[in-house]
Amino acid sequence: MSSPKSLHGVNYAPPRSFKTVLKANLKETLFPDDPFYEFKNEKLSKRILKGIQYFVPICQWLPKYKFGLFMYDLLAGITIASLAIPQGISYAKLAELPPIIGLYSSFVPPLIYAIFGSSKHLAVGTVATCSLIIAAAVQQKVMPEDNMELYVGLFYTSALISGLLQTALGVLRLGFLVDFLSHSTITGFMGGTALIICLQQLKGMLGLKHFTSRTDVYHVLRAVFENRKEWTWQCAVVGVIFLAFLQLSRYVRKKKPNLFWVSAISPIIVVVAGCLFAYFFNAEKHGIAIVGKLNKGINPSSIHLINFSPEYLPAVVKAGIITAMIAIAEGIAIGRSFAIMDNEQIDGNKEMVAIGLMNIVGSLTSCYLSTGPFSKTAVNYNAGCKSQMSNVVMSLCMLLTLLFLAPLFGYTPLVALAAIIMSAMIGLMDYEKAVHLYKTDKFDFLICMVAFFGVAFISMDMGLILSVGLALIRALLYVARPPTCKLGTITNTAFRDIEQYPGSNETPGMLILKLGSPIYFPNSNYVRERILRWVRDEQSLENSQRNEIEYLLLDFGGVTSIDITGVETLLELRRCLAAKSIKIILINPRLGVMEKLIATKFIDKLGKESVFLTIEEAIENCSFSLNSSSQAKREELEIA
Amino acid sequence: MSSPKSLHGVNYAPPRSFKTVLKANLKETLFPDDPFYEFKNEKLSKRILKGIQYFVPICQWLPKYKFGLFMYDLLAGITIASLAIPQGISYAKLAELPPIIGLYSSFVPPLIYAIFGSSKHLAVGTVATCSLIIAAAVQQKVMPEDNMELYVGLFYTSALISGLLQTALGVLRLGFLVDFLSHSTITGFMGGTALIICLQQLKGMLGLKHFTSRTDVYHVLRAVFENRKEWTWQCAVVGVIFLAFLQLSRYVRKKKPNLFWVSAISPIIVVVAGCLFAYFFNAEKHGIAIVGKLNKGINPSSIHLINFSPEYLPAVVKAGIITAMIAIAEGIAIGRSFAIMDNEQIDGNKEMVAIGLMNIVGSLTSCYLSTGPFSKTAVNYNAGCKSQMSNVVMSLCMLLTLLFLAPLFGYTPLVALAAIIMSAMIGLMDYEKAVHLYKTDKFDFLICMVAFFGVAFISMDMGLILSVGLALIRALLYVARPPTCKLGTITNTAFRDIEQYPGSNETPGMLILKLGSPIYFPNSNYVRERILRWVRDEQSLENSQRNEIEYLLLDFGGVTSIDITGVETLLELRRCLAAKSIKIILINPRLGVMEKLIATKFIDKLGKESVFLTIEEAIENCSFSLNSSSQAKREELEIA
Repeated sequence: MSSPKSLHGVNYAPPRSFKTVLKANLKETLFPDDPFYEFKNEKLSKRILKGIQYFVPICQWLPKYKFGLFMYDLLAGITIASLAIPQGISYAKLAELPPIIGLYSSFVPPLIYAIFGSSKHLAVGTVATCSLIIAAAVQQKVMPEDNMELYVGLFYTSALISGLLQTALGVLRLGFLVDFLSHSTITGFMGGTALIICLQQLKGMLGLKHFTSRTDVYHVLRAVFENRKEWTWQCAVVGVIFLAFLQLSRYVRKKKPNLFWVSAISPIIVVVAGCLFAYFFNAEKHGIAIVGKLNKGINPSSIHLINFSPEYLPAVVKAGIITAMIAIAEGIAIGRSFAIMDNEQIDGNKEMVAIGLMNIVGSLTSCYLSTGPFSKTAVNYNAGCKSQMSNVVMSLCMLLTLLFLAPLFGYTPLVALAAIIMSAMIGLMDYEKAVHLYKTDKFDFLICMVAFFGVAFISMDMGLILSVGLALIRALLYVARPPTCKLGTITNTAFRDIEQYPGSNETPGMLILKLGSPIYFPNSNYVRERILRWVRDEQSLENSQRNEIEYLLLDFGGVTSIDITGVETLLELRRCLAAKSIKIILINPRLGVMEKLIATKFIDKLGKESVFLTIEEAIENCSFSLNSSSQAKREELEIA
Repeated sequence: MSSPKSLHGVNYAPPRSFKTVLKANLKETLFPDDPFYEFKNEKLSKRILKGIQYFVPICQWLPKYKFGLFMYDLLAGITIASLAIPQGISYAKLAELPPIIGLYSSFVPPLIYAIFGSSKHLAVGTVATCSLIIAAAVQQKVMPEDNMELYVGLFYTSALISGLLQTALGVLRLGFLVDFLSHSTITGFMGGTALIICLQQLKGMLGLKHFTSRTDVYHVLRAVFENRKEWTWQCAVVGVIFLAFLQLSRYVRKKKPNLFWVSAISPIIVVVAGCLFAYFFNAEKHGIAIVGKLNKGINPSSIHLINFSPEYLPAVVKAGIITAMIAIAEGIAIGRSFAIMDNEQIDGNKEMVAIGLMNIVGSLTSCYLSTGPFSKTAVNYNAGCKSQMSNVVMSLCMLLTLLFLAPLFGYTPLVALAAIIMSAMIGLMDYEKAVHLYKTDKFDFLICMVAFFGVAFISMDMGLILSVGLALIRALLYVARPPTCKLGTITNTAFRDIEQYPGSNETPGMLILKLGSPIYFPNSNYVRERILRWVRDEQSLENSQRNEIEYLLLDFGGVTSIDITGVETLLELRRCLAAKSIKIILINPRLGVMEKLIATKFIDKLGKESVFLTIEEAIENCSFSLNSSSQAKREELEIA
């Protein structure tokens, strides 16, 4: 039997060396975006310059910076500073830290980010979620009222650990680990956290003095209702007014996007109004608590507060790892989405280093974990920022505040902060996204709901872990069950899934299957069983439609990887089918798969005459021998 | 612009209902082999009969059983019984159980397996690996010399838990979980266990009285050398002679496969020779210890020994789960490989139920964990067994032994048992397989080595967990980095990877990429970056080769699944490319992917005119509009 017509030979080149394959795989895994492509074919001096610009982006943009751009950045910087002050104080209060630390955390990190960061739009600041996660972890070891110095020190330590981890992940180009936090997980997690943070604000809104350090819905609500005697109506009235104002300003922004500044400055308005109200009406006497004394002065060093004692380390490391991942997931996703709007690209690993460095330096200068929160970045973008300079401007505004205005903010009523947090959190509950998930992908919806309810009713870490676990199970289930399908002819050269294109024709004597990818140990038994079932189904059809298969054509075009267990399964399959007088034909094995099939001698066992580059070639060849065998049978009969 | 020629329309049918998809997915996940296909289109009475035959295979094979077959099964049964006696006693000794339990465990379980099992070749018995794992776990709670009744009870409890778990996995059709133990893991794990079991036999070979309960190489070797004073040369001489005899018989089998019975009966020869030697030469006085008193009588009930007290439960459950998985992995893999030699098929889930039931019943009748070990099954197969009847014969032989001969085996010298175990374990170290792995797949080799060294130098559970973890990371890395490749034309209708087939031509103005599967949250960033890099690489070529891309053709033929994050990534990609005036064209989205793209309105946003069923159609269409646009440009120029 000779092949009637060979269009193009199958490539049986000997497998590439292990080193080549490893290098190619490492490149795909760690440098998929080829970050150093600009360095190729350049002189050494130019390479060094480009290298510095690559690692310290400020060297790239500052020399080209024009005064015309500064006007935009100045405006944007002042706007985000006006947001940073109330948010900083609020989130510090949420974490039960001294409020001034919230202000410190908006001074140093933005400066560092401006040097190393490559996103033009990211506005640096603290975030509610991470504040609460660290607080929950640290409070298991020490309560702020027992030892504030230790409590604060553990926050810095956790920020240092986060920073180190973020930098390390970035330097080792392991940023893809963050991708394992899927959008669905983040949607659910953010929603759940927003819900419990909202409920916690009932403490501030109702002026409670006693509360729980637990974060789940049940304990928080119980704490609210058990302390009914502490409810203060004055507090509630003021809180509701503030909240209504903030929500109204958000509503305005939603209706008229170019009035975004209304909602951007509304928190500072609330704070200023609150301060004036507290100062002139002596609010404290009416049961409305205020922030209390805030000292002037910039960030003191906090190196002496870093605490690695083994008693606290496990809790701090756990919080550090979780918040590091959440912070970079949020920071990079947000930087990236705004960059895409301007057709620019962000290198996730580089961003990770920038965020990591800013947290390392921050943790040594009395700042706790910061990243690029969505709300602030959106305001920065809308306010027309043009470069990282807006972060510098914000930082300078914070400097002025720390040097001169800090004491004034001491009059801020806690209820105003509660209203600010509540309003921000309501915006984070993205129920439209959840509905979208429900409509389009039930599994993604489930992942999202597990995160939401896990966070709301168990704990934040548990919710996150369960949801990530479920997402991983989905990925593993995919690997465990790669879909196969039966192909039919729709034209002479095109073969498509017969389920999807029911009109397509089958070829007598043959069964054409397209295999899914990969063929790995978790699915190799499945692949064998499934193929045998296709064969059985084909053979057990009613007489009229029955297809006596002599050839099984396996389209390997979609299979991109196979392991040893997979190859062994193919051998078993070959043995099973040989017993039924069915021959296996391989179509278009891809590079990596072909190399594995050659290395394991599978191709030798199968015979090179059973491998084809296209389905039509294979069909032509097989029909040829099908015809000649039936011809032979006829001749035999005639002779007999 | 109108399509010049449409060969076959793209299928835009509305997505199937959630219920349909869920049902299809569950079927693929849990019933890939469609076990009930024989029941379709049958009458109720026939269905019930088939159902009984399905769940209790003895109802199927016994009525058809012929006396002619029985002669074969009788011979095979006697042969495996002669192996079962020394192995049973040896492995019980290995687990520091009373030796009689090893004999009990070869009486009841084979009977149960003969009723429910569907493999004709599987010979039931205890295995060294599992004996050692359970012993290591139980000895953390109680030592046999302190409380033998409790010690034995925990073994039964662990067997009961294993049996329940195995049955449950089988009934719930979750057998595929076992597939996550890859061949490479099992090879390394078996090798590592064989090594440490071999080393442990130095205790018996050297006649030591004090030893360690740790299993790792370091502690075992230290125990051997620390007790140098206990070394008994008489013991060592006898041991080496026995071991040499056993290895010689294995060598004979290897050289002349039809002399397999020589190695099959050599263990019982060693035991009998040892007994005679011990009896006539009064070996005990020369420092050669013997097994000691064995009582006549069949298995007593052990229900009263089952112990679920919370103090011991965690260790017992852990051992039960690990050994359950190993036992079914071994039993099913072995049953399956022998079935394939005879062109039969084994339903893994049904086998799991059979093995589970035999362990449940066994644990209540003084047997500990048993499965179908490789050595015994191979002997059974070679001895010519024809059905499960050989297990019944073995069981009856064990009955006779228990009733009449047991006391005689009390004279067996321990050193003979050590030689039998050692010889069996040497056969389990499959270094050829390891070399094969090294040559063909470095990652599989790594997985294997992690299991081997983990077991040898840390602990058995740790070695297993690390290796399975590494294998899972491989599967996840696959999902994180599905390969894309650039396609070139090799014929008008065939498009292949340009790296694999360097001769293929590119189409000017277009870039054709074939995407890997799946497009999921862990890889969506990668997929976007990688595609953008392909585009950049294409555009940054030297002037002469430069390809000004106007169309990016994405071949979705190999993509079998996409999630929400993946769809969002495609949207981002579309926005990025639109900025570079590049249009995305989708080719042949598969059924599930198309449904997701329709449900998320991606197709609406992209436009149905940008989706094609084949690459050639897409090229034809795009060339058409490329030409007309350059025509228009020329005309514009002419007018100007």
